[in-house]
Amino acid sequence: MPDYAQIKKELEGLAVEDNPALVRQKSRDFYWYSPILKEELESVTADLVVSPKSEEEVIRVLKVAYAHGVPVTPRGAGTGNYGQAMPLSGGIVLNLINMNKVKEIHPGRVIAEPGIVIAELDRQTKAHSGQELRFHPSTAQTATIGGFVAGGSGGVGSIHWGGLRDLGNILRLRVVTMEAEPRVLDLTAWDLQKVTHAYGTNGIIVEVEMPLAPAYDWVDVLVGYDDFMDAVRFGDALAHKNGLLVKEIAPIAAPIPYDYFPRHKPFLRDRNQSIVVLMIAPHSMDAFTAFAERQKGEILFRSDKVESMKGIPHAYELAWNHTTLRALKVDPGFTYLQVQYPGPDHVAKVEKMTKLFGDEVPGHLEFIKFDGRMQCSGLPLVRYTTRERLEEIMQIHRDNGCPIFNPHRYTLEEGGMKQTDTVQLAFKKETDPKGLLNPGKMIAWDNPDFDFSAGKNYLFPGLAAAGG
Amino acid sequence: MPDYAQIKKELEGLAVEDNPALVRQKSRDFYWYSPILKEELESVTADLVVSPKSEEEVIRVLKVAYAHGVPVTPRGAGTGNYGQAMPLSGGIVLNLINMNKVKEIHPGRVIAEPGIVIAELDRQTKAHSGQELRFHPSTAQTATIGGFVAGGSGGVGSIHWGGLRDLGNILRLRVVTMEAEPRVLDLTAWDLQKVTHAYGTNGIIVEVEMPLAPAYDWVDVLVGYDDFMDAVRFGDALAHKNGLLVKEIAPIAAPIPYDYFPRHKPFLRDRNQSIVVLMIAPHSMDAFTAFAERQKGEILFRSDKVESMKGIPHAYELAWNHTTLRALKVDPGFTYLQVQYPGPDHVAKVEKMTKLFGDEVPGHLEFIKFDGRMQCSGLPLVRYTTRERLEEIMQIHRDNGCPIFNPHRYTLEEGGMKQTDTVQLAFKKETDPKGLLNPGKMIAWDNPDFDFSAGKNYLFPGLAAAGG
Repeated sequence: MPDYAQIKKELEGLAVEDNPALVRQKSRDFYWYSPILKEELESVTADLVVSPKSEEEVIRVLKVAYAHGVPVTPRGAGTGNYGQAMPLSGGIVLNLINMNKVKEIHPGRVIAEPGIVIAELDRQTKAHSGQELRFHPSTAQTATIGGFVAGGSGGVGSIHWGGLRDLGNILRLRVVTMEAEPRVLDLTAWDLQKVTHAYGTNGIIVEVEMPLAPAYDWVDVLVGYDDFMDAVRFGDALAHKNGLLVKEIAPIAAPIPYDYFPRHKPFLRDRNQSIVVLMIAPHSMDAFTAFAERQKGEILFRSDKVESMKGIPHAYELAWNHTTLRALKVDPGFTYLQVQYPGPDHVAKVEKMTKLFGDEVPGHLEFIKFDGRMQCSGLPLVRYTTRERLEEIMQIHRDNGCPIFNPHRYTLEEGGMKQTDTVQLAFKKETDPKGLLNPGKMIAWDNPDFDFSAGKNYLFPGLAAAGG
Repeated sequence: MPDYAQIKKELEGLAVEDNPALVRQKSRDFYWYSPILKEELESVTADLVVSPKSEEEVIRVLKVAYAHGVPVTPRGAGTGNYGQAMPLSGGIVLNLINMNKVKEIHPGRVIAEPGIVIAELDRQTKAHSGQELRFHPSTAQTATIGGFVAGGSGGVGSIHWGGLRDLGNILRLRVVTMEAEPRVLDLTAWDLQKVTHAYGTNGIIVEVEMPLAPAYDWVDVLVGYDDFMDAVRFGDALAHKNGLLVKEIAPIAAPIPYDYFPRHKPFLRDRNQSIVVLMIAPHSMDAFTAFAERQKGEILFRSDKVESMKGIPHAYELAWNHTTLRALKVDPGFTYLQVQYPGPDHVAKVEKMTKLFGDEVPGHLEFIKFDGRMQCSGLPLVRYTTRERLEEIMQIHRDNGCPIFNPHRYTLEEGGMKQTDTVQLAFKKETDPKGLLNPGKMIAWDNPDFDFSAGKNYLFPGLAAAGG
């Protein structure tokens, strides 16, 4: 057991929290979206939360933690869904929310500290020069940019720009290593792969440089169809219209919108209406409405035509993982999947899964650009019964050419490509020789011989040790 | 013969030119790119050039012309290549270059008069709010926005936005009809098809509303490869990189760059180097260079690294029809084609044509977005020998699944889809009952029974009558 009294002494002058209730609060994220993770990670908690205000303070914390052999798990706002920021072996949660300054804004790019909330970052770049991030998660109002880069993948705007993994969608990350004498590294271009979506397992991000796109007063639109597949086809057709500037296209199957979107429910006819959630540039609205009319889509809602938006959430807060959140809030019996429907026959694949599962797996798609091509990923809801049935549903997807990114696993590999990321592993060997950064998230570090093809769930030994 | 003395009297107060040399000058465009059009249109000239300064003056001219039964052919800067603005039956050239005011600039859109030069329009929107047109022709420094809309199709930036035909790439056109009492119509959305790329045959555009994109200080880049197909593959791969913001990708085969781009020649190694002409957003340059290196592309030129850009043309002035222009300037033995290589096997199609024709048809591609998918169109050069061989080269392309938009024809149909555009024809019946607007360009008007499948060249009777 590390000597936390001594550690606190060595961290004097920094914001350190050890009240168990508060520490526990800052040791959680939205892992409970998954009934499986809810069970596995319920008891996870850190020993201390340290909230540095600068790069220098981060370096101080890492030096102390390294000397004492204490794990450090970085945290933004804790809006992840797979325990990204949960300290599986206890130790220190490094809460970066106070490192929230915008440092520079230029045409096409911004430099900021990692803890700034994404919506606040967008507010500042918009006020400065009519710019905003290329894309953001549906949690933009609470999530931090550093947390997004370290634990997210894509979001609202990915229909134009793809995801964080795509070269050019992050410009630079400044990272502190976990060594006796922490180093500060600036990573660009290919080197960004080392730490993007690595959950902070191989470096602490202390500065981000992100590309910007033009900010518009996006119009929120809901288009209704009586058949979910008509909604999907409309979304697909719209995604392929070169001249219409659209930031978000998310078809969501009935009865989800009527049952779980209470503020938008008055705009829907009944439970049978599927919708497409959209964000359209104001100067594309005339052309868009002409297009929707020709596609026989019923425009149910336009944020530029309602009397007041008071109390009505942003369209993007109906989409991505907010769809799941809204359903879960009303009915805790839901969970969800993350599915890819590789093109060019992505619509046919969606149709097949829709027919196969019906209302057990209500459809929710997000159109995104994937290697320069439009396709859709899915975040379908699942009416959860048993762990076995959930596994079966996932396997049926895989058997039909629809890969699953499993949101019911807390490790990088099991949630991702089911293989060792050699780039991230090699970087961790350089930057975290003691393996103290966010332990338990990179199987390749803990158990290089783990057999991903065996179909077994990895159980991090350190989690059991910590009482998990 | 119309009574031009009387007409001039009725047009008193307007800028009217009847000096035959000056009128002839304003009756031409870049039709001479085609040896066939050069022969056919050589003697075309108007009787008068009238240069209105306002919508009211346009209405006055049309009223007078209608009363006298005189043809009116609208003209921007005359940078078209197919005689778009050439008055086949004489009459009045309506020179719109003095209607050149920017009226309003908003986020994402601009309202302007048709005669403003595109580069000047971009200068004003950029100075106002960091915005510019979504795409422009390579002739931006001289071409007008109205001429582009009426006679162009796409250009620099079409890799993101597609072409003028795509819904949303023009927001509104204000058009004056050719009637006893001319009407003024505002067209939006689907209605824009009526007059876009109609060469002014069914209305005079007096105001345009165009969408804007963010303006950046685009970096001009030339990347070299020893094999043209490597250059093509690089362009295709780059076009599919979601996160790299690129405005122009044009592979051009050796020896064109070395032989005909004198200002860039010092940056090339020798005649055997094919190049890719690029415009890259400054904030994408780091990622771009990392990508180019991995693709084994040799970066020959970067506008942000040369000592001085004095005397060096913009990259886009090496591309689109400026490639053709530069070759023609040195060697009048060239002409060119307009080819589509429909995807997804567009690269394989290019390879096949490249192998088949070799140096007789040096390759030049432009990557563009087509219905949401990346593909390439081509403007290959042709070492011209005979009319028969040119026709044969075009037929071989068609036989290999590569449609030709024939730049050696002056009619809308023969240069385009080889079929009647019923929308444009119906609109002409409404707006130009006497058929006085730009006569001879719409076959469907003059000869509804013309058989496009017979493979015969249409000869406008009015052209012969006018001495053409």
